[in-house]
Amino acid sequence: MAVGQCSFPVMHPVPGITLGSANAGIKQTVRDDVLVIQMAEQSTCAAVFTQNAFCAAPVHVAKANLLHAPRWLLINSGNANAGTGEQGMTDALTSCAYLAEVVGGVATQVLPFSTGVIGQSLAIDKIKSVLPTIINNLSLDNWTKAAQAIMTTDTFPKGVSKVIDIDGQTITINGISKGAGMIQPNMATMLGFIATDAKINQSLLQNCLALAVEQSFNRITVDGDTSTNDACVLMASGCSLVPEIKQGTETYRIFSDAVMTVCKQLAEAIVRDGEGATKLMRIVVEQAASAEEAVRVGKTIAHSPLVKTAFFASDPNWGRILAAVGRAGVENMVLEHVQLYLDEVCIVRNGGRADDYTEEAGQQVMNQEEITITVKLGRGSTVQEVLTCDLSYEYVKINAEYRT
Amino acid sequence: MAVGQCSFPVMHPVPGITLGSANAGIKQTVRDDVLVIQMAEQSTCAAVFTQNAFCAAPVHVAKANLLHAPRWLLINSGNANAGTGEQGMTDALTSCAYLAEVVGGVATQVLPFSTGVIGQSLAIDKIKSVLPTIINNLSLDNWTKAAQAIMTTDTFPKGVSKVIDIDGQTITINGISKGAGMIQPNMATMLGFIATDAKINQSLLQNCLALAVEQSFNRITVDGDTSTNDACVLMASGCSLVPEIKQGTETYRIFSDAVMTVCKQLAEAIVRDGEGATKLMRIVVEQAASAEEAVRVGKTIAHSPLVKTAFFASDPNWGRILAAVGRAGVENMVLEHVQLYLDEVCIVRNGGRADDYTEEAGQQVMNQEEITITVKLGRGSTVQEVLTCDLSYEYVKINAEYRT
Repeated sequence: MAVGQCSFPVMHPVPGITLGSANAGIKQTVRDDVLVIQMAEQSTCAAVFTQNAFCAAPVHVAKANLLHAPRWLLINSGNANAGTGEQGMTDALTSCAYLAEVVGGVATQVLPFSTGVIGQSLAIDKIKSVLPTIINNLSLDNWTKAAQAIMTTDTFPKGVSKVIDIDGQTITINGISKGAGMIQPNMATMLGFIATDAKINQSLLQNCLALAVEQSFNRITVDGDTSTNDACVLMASGCSLVPEIKQGTETYRIFSDAVMTVCKQLAEAIVRDGEGATKLMRIVVEQAASAEEAVRVGKTIAHSPLVKTAFFASDPNWGRILAAVGRAGVENMVLEHVQLYLDEVCIVRNGGRADDYTEEAGQQVMNQEEITITVKLGRGSTVQEVLTCDLSYEYVKINAEYRT
Repeated sequence: MAVGQCSFPVMHPVPGITLGSANAGIKQTVRDDVLVIQMAEQSTCAAVFTQNAFCAAPVHVAKANLLHAPRWLLINSGNANAGTGEQGMTDALTSCAYLAEVVGGVATQVLPFSTGVIGQSLAIDKIKSVLPTIINNLSLDNWTKAAQAIMTTDTFPKGVSKVIDIDGQTITINGISKGAGMIQPNMATMLGFIATDAKINQSLLQNCLALAVEQSFNRITVDGDTSTNDACVLMASGCSLVPEIKQGTETYRIFSDAVMTVCKQLAEAIVRDGEGATKLMRIVVEQAASAEEAVRVGKTIAHSPLVKTAFFASDPNWGRILAAVGRAGVENMVLEHVQLYLDEVCIVRNGGRADDYTEEAGQQVMNQEEITITVKLGRGSTVQEVLTCDLSYEYVKINAEYRT
């Protein structure tokens, strides 16, 4: 159950970035569940992490190690190593040490990431046992397997590959992500790994990532729950022949736009694969007085179980959308100034149903798999977009049976 | 589908308060859908209304008429008269005028209330046609029919009746309410009507209601959606032989406590009858630094679809509760200071699973219909309670099929 085209693209190799994965038996599937990404020496690396006050152990370690010029990412799926207390911290640190030993590096150069069930001990011996094989098989071409290895309840692997041309030389940007549930990223998504061969210093790379994440992963929501393990990493190997990217240049603008596009596509893929999703809803809030209020209105609509179930049922029950706008907490909003559209069909105008609205027109839009809800607040000129999906029986089923 | 004992109690008559209802065909059921409550002359009346920015037309009219010593409440179910623009305002005002004509009163003495589908015109002619019959049959004993007449997707009528003794004389307090969906009242619940024969001035009555609502209806949530039509009314006929209740007296304290109890029981009944509910969750947040942060943590847990589906599945997936606490937006929260209990079973302590916790013990609690989740934040001494229910297939079914 996923909305629309979800095929995995051809991933161009990113010079300086190699990947390897294996099945360590952490997840109860035949899919790989441990992934290592290796960056060339001199790479720079940026990352953003969950704003959940209760970060998982690997998030604490990755945040600290980000300052030590990381060379390796060690990722496991099937277990989040969250809510695991002191043992969890020890396990995260030990798993980094295991990898450092195999690659002949230092433990602080490893960023650990975990995703899966909360509150269970991580089987680090299982991870240890597969590391030599993984390192032996590191390759530029393992992107598809890597995208599969980080999946949990995702129904398809998510990847984007983009090559940009700068004065006859190329920069490649690849990204993979996973999502599905507990998705309302706040400063980062569940897990997103983006790699490029661009040469760019760490602080500029960090700015570039933060900006892209704010407009992509931070604008999607499946169920309003922010994970304890959210993280998004942008690695730059510096192996491209394009000269170093400097702040304020045209090259930076092009590069930054490309990173934004990759993030937006990965974020959209997460919503398309939202747990139980049958519809993709693009909520565009226009004429807002500020970005903050636009996002607030967009997310209030996106989180409403009544709106989400109405979309699941293809029911143009616009009263629920209007009620959500009304309770978003925007002060001095005037109902008479608000307009509501489903795609191009105007539903609400002048405080009530638009004169020319017909149920048939609304129904026709609702029957689609992808729908744009546009709310014009009549308060200003700011526009923001939030992506979400519907709430189906399947969502309840998946989450009621998650651990069984 | 409702949780626990939901039988309708014996309702004592409230001197000075008469009720009458009829089936006007607004709702597509055989149940009555129009209710009139008449207060004796000299009654006082307090009310609180939804904080949704887009109030329904009847809410606007009721707010205004509250200042004109109301004598009648005119309530219909099946149609919310919300999102109906100017026509909706005209309809609300006209329906008040119709009632005033039948009873020989003034339209401004009528408070109108509507609940049901949003965005459709109210058939006020249907209401008009049943008013003479209703007024002819006003009676002290119609509480059960009244509670049934205000139901929408509720599966049982909700009522509480309480008699308190003051120096050998009695005061009766009756309440009825309706809820089921779009339930996260904010300053009032969906619809609650409470009547007493106490003699008490309007401003003290308003204080009493506001306090009771804050700790009852404003502490429950089914789906996090705040309705456009929420309202709660407290009527006092003054017909009791107990002398007028004055501020700061012991009698006021007893009366106020009784009103609070009635409101809490009505609020709990709404959660027990939450759409698709199979479990009642009482979320107690202790050791908070303030009431605001306690309620915030409680509501974040209560709104998490992941928590709600885990409870539906009777799965002690406490990681989801912990993740919700973590994303509640409370600053400087320390995971190591937080404790989590399911009933008496301690699950989380010292940042991870409690040493003595067993899945069996957690499972045993989860198998119950009613469960108390206690979160101790380790930050202060404030305690607040939030009530909610689980998220089931039935919730999706009810809301996907609401208009069909």
